Amino acid sequence: MKQLQPPLTNYYKLKKMIDISNDHAVGIDIGGTNTKYGIVNHRGQIVFEGSIRTDAYPIIGDFINALYEKLQPEIERLKDVHVVGIGMGAPNGNFYTGTIDYAPNLHWKGIIPLADLMTAKFKLPAKLTNDANAAAVGEMMYGAARGMKDFIMITLGTGVGSGIFANGELILGHDGFAGELGHTIVVPGGRVHPNTGSMGSLESYASATGVTITAIEYMTGTDEASVLRGIPQAELNSKMVFDAALAGDSLAQKVFKSTGDILGMALANFVMFSSPQAIILFGGLTKAGDILMKPVKDSMERNLLPIFQNKVQLIFSELKESDAAILGASALVWG
Amino acid sequence: MKQLQPPLTNYYKLKKMIDISNDHAVGIDIGGTNTKYGIVNHRGQIVFEGSIRTDAYPIIGDFINALYEKLQPEIERLKDVHVVGIGMGAPNGNFYTGTIDYAPNLHWKGIIPLADLMTAKFKLPAKLTNDANAAAVGEMMYGAARGMKDFIMITLGTGVGSGIFANGELILGHDGFAGELGHTIVVPGGRVHPNTGSMGSLESYASATGVTITAIEYMTGTDEASVLRGIPQAELNSKMVFDAALAGDSLAQKVFKSTGDILGMALANFVMFSSPQAIILFGGLTKAGDILMKPVKDSMERNLLPIFQNKVQLIFSELKESDAAILGASALVWG
Repeated sequence: MKQLQPPLTNYYKLKKMIDISNDHAVGIDIGGTNTKYGIVNHRGQIVFEGSIRTDAYPIIGDFINALYEKLQPEIERLKDVHVVGIGMGAPNGNFYTGTIDYAPNLHWKGIIPLADLMTAKFKLPAKLTNDANAAAVGEMMYGAARGMKDFIMITLGTGVGSGIFANGELILGHDGFAGELGHTIVVPGGRVHPNTGSMGSLESYASATGVTITAIEYMTGTDEASVLRGIPQAELNSKMVFDAALAGDSLAQKVFKSTGDILGMALANFVMFSSPQAIILFGGLTKAGDILMKPVKDSMERNLLPIFQNKVQLIFSELKESDAAILGASALVWG
Repeated sequence: MKQLQPPLTNYYKLKKMIDISNDHAVGIDIGGTNTKYGIVNHRGQIVFEGSIRTDAYPIIGDFINALYEKLQPEIERLKDVHVVGIGMGAPNGNFYTGTIDYAPNLHWKGIIPLADLMTAKFKLPAKLTNDANAAAVGEMMYGAARGMKDFIMITLGTGVGSGIFANGELILGHDGFAGELGHTIVVPGGRVHPNTGSMGSLESYASATGVTITAIEYMTGTDEASVLRGIPQAELNSKMVFDAALAGDSLAQKVFKSTGDILGMALANFVMFSSPQAIILFGGLTKAGDILMKPVKDSMERNLLPIFQNKVQLIFSELKESDAAILGASALVWG
């Protein structure tokens, strides 16, 4: 009995294409406070997402069980969706070993073999990297850095994180820990970082916490009038400093000018290292807009050698903040 | 008439192997004062070398003619040697464009299309990169960085140059100018660089010139006794400061301690960028040995996050200083 081969072959080809297009990945962004997760398709669309409190689970096994209870029913429920793996971003997450190593702002101490633990629970391959690296991968695949081979992503939030692409590849370093630009020293002998003990690191100045401390230092060190003096120091935050600056408060404006000077100098140094096409900025502090970005840009250009001046784009992330890291983490599964 | 084919085939195979093994490359290292050149084989052996004064040729065409007069007779004279191309390292040399762009310490101003000019003269393909990048390629192929995928090469001479490998590749940046670590700012608002106008760049402190200036500053700013006070300032150089430090002069020792503190902090910042397996140091200032290297190492470790500490090898180049750049430049031809 004769059977027609070509239509079947095409059918299988088509089926394979549909299968691939239905491949989905779980993306998980682990932060000190919250962990956000999503199920993501090849086009970077998040078909399901949610979050749990990271700090509610001091024991790693409980954290993984909580993620499993949230994710597994969706993985099973979503028809026509084939989840092929899990990608994760976490502070001090190591791509090579799949472990979180001594993360200062997580409850889990020592070395946590997170990728192996997740694979054991979900029966799916799992990959892990640094949270800022995951966000950089997200920007490169779905955001402002699409098509760029050389760029640096800087997250300006409670802390300062970074992910670096050069020659079209994520820079991981020999041990997987490259790209800790928030901990580079920008003011020798400067402000002590409460978690690391470093003196004068970028994160001590160009983070939300840094802006608040700078405001307090300006108030303590000068007699200049400011609306911020009416706020108890323990309640002061970077949003209040920003609002004051926007309303014309001169002291608050000086805080952003000083922060921008330091951040811009640091960015100039990063540019003279890897000569990126763009620096993508991301995170809460970027909401300050021009009040921060004008001094950043001025300081960066001023500190650059002429051959680098007026070449580097300084741009904001195009992705929703919560999405970039989920998308980037999920993209580890395809890479 | 019957002819035996296999021996002939083998003959041609063998001939091809001999041809490849006889392929040689010209390597040229262009510095502000001297230009060194060599003819190099695949194993990194220099079969012929020489040098001309760079600064004797203010017109680029004259410089190329002078190189041609030195090299061409050797290229023709060396039997069994097949020169297949020219590789060059020069300050502000750009790999992508083959041009030297606005090099502050060369006579030739503006943009010099050196690779094209060399090809037109020698009728050989020519490649160009930054002089420190060429030295890094030399270290990776023939020196202390053999087999390393992630390392940073720092040249500590009259100036401070650098070449960076990450993921097994030279980091060139989007425009070919990556790796200008000597111009990163390490002392905000610090010493003005006479050529660039930058304030507080690494090169202003951790170069031979920087050491001399630091010694003068220490003598001007303190009353401390020192054998260096017997030397007219215009005659003072880093070798004299080193000799004084070695002989126990306390002021001279403080100069090296201060230089090491600054350089070590800068190296810590570089490590937190690309997490290299090793930093290879190279150039005149490394002759100071432990007097410089102990404070460098102490300061680097002190400024590193714990996850980076006691992991990075700090080693001296294994290549003769003049050879590294020639070898690296010649290796561009094979790459």
